Amino acid sequence: MDLVTEKFSKLGVDNAPGQEARQKVAELDIRGAKIAGKPVDFSHGDVDAHIPTPGALGVFVDGVQLGTKQAYTEYRGAKAICDDIAAKLAKFTGAPILGDKEIIITPGTQCALFLAMGALIGRGDKVAIVEPDYFANRKLVEFFDGKLVPIKMDYFGANNCAGLDLVQLEKAFKSGVKLFLFSNPNNPTGVIYSESEIKTIAVLAKKHNVALIVDELYSRQIFDNHDYTHLRAQKEVPESLITILGPSKTESLSGYRLGAAFGSSYIINRMEKLQAIVSLRAGGYSQAVLKIWFSEPKGFMKARIAAHQDIRDGILKKVRAIDGVKARTTEGGSYLFIQLPSMDVDINAFAKIVRQLTDVTITPGTEFGPQFTNSFRINFSQDKGAALSAIDRVMKIMERYRR
Amino acid sequence: MDLVTEKFSKLGVDNAPGQEARQKVAELDIRGAKIAGKPVDFSHGDVDAHIPTPGALGVFVDGVQLGTKQAYTEYRGAKAICDDIAAKLAKFTGAPILGDKEIIITPGTQCALFLAMGALIGRGDKVAIVEPDYFANRKLVEFFDGKLVPIKMDYFGANNCAGLDLVQLEKAFKSGVKLFLFSNPNNPTGVIYSESEIKTIAVLAKKHNVALIVDELYSRQIFDNHDYTHLRAQKEVPESLITILGPSKTESLSGYRLGAAFGSSYIINRMEKLQAIVSLRAGGYSQAVLKIWFSEPKGFMKARIAAHQDIRDGILKKVRAIDGVKARTTEGGSYLFIQLPSMDVDINAFAKIVRQLTDVTITPGTEFGPQFTNSFRINFSQDKGAALSAIDRVMKIMERYRR
Repeated sequence: MDLVTEKFSKLGVDNAPGQEARQKVAELDIRGAKIAGKPVDFSHGDVDAHIPTPGALGVFVDGVQLGTKQAYTEYRGAKAICDDIAAKLAKFTGAPILGDKEIIITPGTQCALFLAMGALIGRGDKVAIVEPDYFANRKLVEFFDGKLVPIKMDYFGANNCAGLDLVQLEKAFKSGVKLFLFSNPNNPTGVIYSESEIKTIAVLAKKHNVALIVDELYSRQIFDNHDYTHLRAQKEVPESLITILGPSKTESLSGYRLGAAFGSSYIINRMEKLQAIVSLRAGGYSQAVLKIWFSEPKGFMKARIAAHQDIRDGILKKVRAIDGVKARTTEGGSYLFIQLPSMDVDINAFAKIVRQLTDVTITPGTEFGPQFTNSFRINFSQDKGAALSAIDRVMKIMERYRR
Repeated sequence: MDLVTEKFSKLGVDNAPGQEARQKVAELDIRGAKIAGKPVDFSHGDVDAHIPTPGALGVFVDGVQLGTKQAYTEYRGAKAICDDIAAKLAKFTGAPILGDKEIIITPGTQCALFLAMGALIGRGDKVAIVEPDYFANRKLVEFFDGKLVPIKMDYFGANNCAGLDLVQLEKAFKSGVKLFLFSNPNNPTGVIYSESEIKTIAVLAKKHNVALIVDELYSRQIFDNHDYTHLRAQKEVPESLITILGPSKTESLSGYRLGAAFGSSYIINRMEKLQAIVSLRAGGYSQAVLKIWFSEPKGFMKARIAAHQDIRDGILKKVRAIDGVKARTTEGGSYLFIQLPSMDVDINAFAKIVRQLTDVTITPGTEFGPQFTNSFRINFSQDKGAALSAIDRVMKIMERYRR
């Protein structure tokens, strides 16, 4: 097998969220009849149930009417929009951002992550990632020919913190890791790193000259007034630090494909060079939509967070009533990572069976780390009634397979 | 210098089209006063002068109103839209395309090119490219750690063909080249490959098992009823063949960031895997805009082509009146590659001087191959009067520096 064939054989997408329609119908151990109910796709949020920020389409149309100027921006994004969101993000994260040097607008936060990792990973470089964490992280390390160094997060055992294994992290940093990336709130568990964990990560990274990428995609959707610590606002931070944020989740603006990365200017410069050959720029007209980001109508964010907290509570009540099923309470974001008891089928087969028998789509835990063979992730940004009914159906199917 | 630093030091964007605002004001040999006139940015087309296809914004808004279904498509694009454009592109290019297997929608044709090259280039693979050709081609080969094998195109010496050196091409293929990519019509010269050239490329690629990427971005804008041959419709084609097309140029839909790649299903599969970690998908709502592609209002394309042919003729008349300046007549697309006489400054400095003294942006020839030290590219999809005045100013500045 040649190098490129080998690389792509490892880059699977068939079990990735949103790709379920492409799955081949394999030989599944189907038990019992279908359970009828409204189809729910837990692999992503439902922007029909939680609609995009009011005014988004209006500023998009204004952008189209601006014409050439908006269609052809600099590769890193239109200057005025970069300046505007730099100021807003600086305020939100508690540390300054230079609009002309330290920020880039990307087609979605996925692309921000791709560009940041492409800017920092050389062939053979050691890259530390958390397990569990966002499924694309591992694939990106492989694509850029890095060497993966997993760091354990004991999200069930921890109290008042995420449970990151800081001893293992320091050992990894000492062993020559060049980059550590993690999402906060964590995807898929929804846990938030404590101030102490964040401080320790920052100090260790600075000490061992490790670059950091912090994916804060869900940091605007915090439940129960939980504390949230922005790493970039810490006193001691490493020289190489990129924070990623975008309006695709809480704000439901995913259809416009927008993200932002901000931090060390030399990394932003590399990211722009890479963006020039990846996709030139984030869609010009879409960039205009960022004008309403962090300027939502009064009460919009508060209501949205409350609605999601309510759905979370409803689902947790249901799953916790079932023996052997557990989940840590989501502290931020729209994900729940639910652990099931032992079953006769593996989690990949279970997800396919659930889809066939209930029209419900869930994401297998193994997308987030090879050891999560009994867990699945859901994005509960859904219509509440539909989500609760869907969870009931998933649990009923589970009972047919539990040992 | 570590591997990744070295890679990015080679990936310059400062002289790339559209990036001129970021250029540092260096020590320039400024001669004479500014020449006033309407600013013209020849680095890209002006969608204010040649407006987007009527109806584009309407179908975009329809897409937004479709909600979740349109926001979260499969990574390769919404199935119905893939099927629709596969049928249209099959008709246009003269060979069938399977909508569910052989096409992917990308955020712009730049991303289509990135994904196709990423899907085919392994570390150390030899990649043949034409000189001159699209500036990103060389950068992409470098980014994917390929080895560049340049193929000469004698666009001034050739008659009734592009002038590709087919002897050199076969020699390169025999030497183990794995991939050959080229744009047709050629960017920056606007020449169209003859049927004989296309047939030879296809036959040689099949014989030597070379993968082909054909960038046909401008193939809908053909002047003087010139013949155009789609490679993918030839009897003999290699197993690995991708064609790239998009609505950003003639159709002026660049602000929506849309492109398509179609061909060998195993390459499309790899491209989708890569797109999943690069940017997930082309903007969901933007994808809806493809519904009007190849379904333009009656007469729209004909009028657009005629308007561009008229601008081309006006510019050619002006530059050909000047001793020592030459350009091959554009056969397709909106580019002219204009060769100047020897000057006291190099073409990069000249471009910067022109910008300072005339508010006109041109792209240095060296972006398209290191040997094009006396040429520059313009995109003449501009307001006609503004373009003609801008060319006058550029030529006047040239006279101040010619030897």
